[in-house]
Amino acid sequence: MEILSAKKILAANDKLARDNRRRLDEQRVFMVNLIGSPGAGKTTLLERLLPEMGCAGSLRVVQGDMATREDADRIEAVGVKALQINTENGCHLAAHMLPPAFEMLDLPGADFLFVENVGNLICPAEFHLGEHLRAIVLSVPEGDDKVRKYPPTFATADALVVTKTDLAASNDFDFERVASDLKRLSPRAKVFKVCAKRGEGIRELAEWLKERRESAFA
Amino acid sequence: MEILSAKKILAANDKLARDNRRRLDEQRVFMVNLIGSPGAGKTTLLERLLPEMGCAGSLRVVQGDMATREDADRIEAVGVKALQINTENGCHLAAHMLPPAFEMLDLPGADFLFVENVGNLICPAEFHLGEHLRAIVLSVPEGDDKVRKYPPTFATADALVVTKTDLAASNDFDFERVASDLKRLSPRAKVFKVCAKRGEGIRELAEWLKERRESAFA
Repeated sequence: MEILSAKKILAANDKLARDNRRRLDEQRVFMVNLIGSPGAGKTTLLERLLPEMGCAGSLRVVQGDMATREDADRIEAVGVKALQINTENGCHLAAHMLPPAFEMLDLPGADFLFVENVGNLICPAEFHLGEHLRAIVLSVPEGDDKVRKYPPTFATADALVVTKTDLAASNDFDFERVASDLKRLSPRAKVFKVCAKRGEGIRELAEWLKERRESAFA
Repeated sequence: MEILSAKKILAANDKLARDNRRRLDEQRVFMVNLIGSPGAGKTTLLERLLPEMGCAGSLRVVQGDMATREDADRIEAVGVKALQINTENGCHLAAHMLPPAFEMLDLPGADFLFVENVGNLICPAEFHLGEHLRAIVLSVPEGDDKVRKYPPTFATADALVVTKTDLAASNDFDFERVASDLKRLSPRAKVFKVCAKRGEGIRELAEWLKERRESAFA
């Protein structure tokens, strides 16, 4: 009998991720996978970003959490259709969890699907969901040493969104250090500085995501 | 052929954790496992806590990180013997990693061994190391909803150390909510409020840990 190794589990996940991607491409739905620590500000970012992304009817959100449906409730409060996935003991979302969500969210007609992964800077990175774009969310209070301390995650970034920038001075946060650590790991990644509370940097991120969707489906 | 299930891997880890514990008990070394998100302030807490714990020669620290030896360097800078474990792709420390660390840290004669786990609020919780006491570190900027959103982790807490309390007002952080969520999950857990920057709450935590060691080895 064969052993089901971690490598095979990841390969099986990759296959399902490719299936998800095919389906999204057919429906011209651009999927963004948001990964970050607990409390990095992923949900708050979405609350501010979604109203900049276009009409609410063209947007969908999947919320991953171990427990509660509080995050999906917060998204629905800004008028966007959201689905909560509760992983219970699970530390990440995986590709097989998405197809039921696609059904429940009534995907055709949507332009964007944002997936907020379970709060964890490590495990979600290995599990591709079929996303077109992966954004790692890092908050200033976590510290400017995190890119170099979690290299496998940041190496997969298409974008780095640094949040809570209003706290940069009091945290001695060195943006240059973060950018140069990231450049080594993922030269393609674009860096955004965001303060959701003050609405700073949100529009730039929204414009870039729309451009990315345009070129993906050109 | 048998399948090596996640449950069996955890059972094997538990057995090794019991071996670690036996060895620590024989040597009267009290082991504390610190678990928390990236940037929760675990290393900064140790930098302030260790000088309150007694003479530096009676203390040892194991630092878990995916990469770099920056945290162990920070601990050595306060005069305490520290060992860095780099897990590379690993999202948690496991019991089998400790015995080599015990050797390298010259354990006999120490009173306390602090283990700072890999920054991850989920996966380290399942892997017991043989610790006498587990402290979950939660920083105020992460938000007061985290206990209820990561219940499997907080259910294992002997202590909850809330850090960066100087940011409580600007984050609208509700300590009562955190305490009541925790009481449901781990009624035995004691809550400490700490601001390492200002040195607040450090002495109380140090005194409590010393008491806990005294009763463990009475």
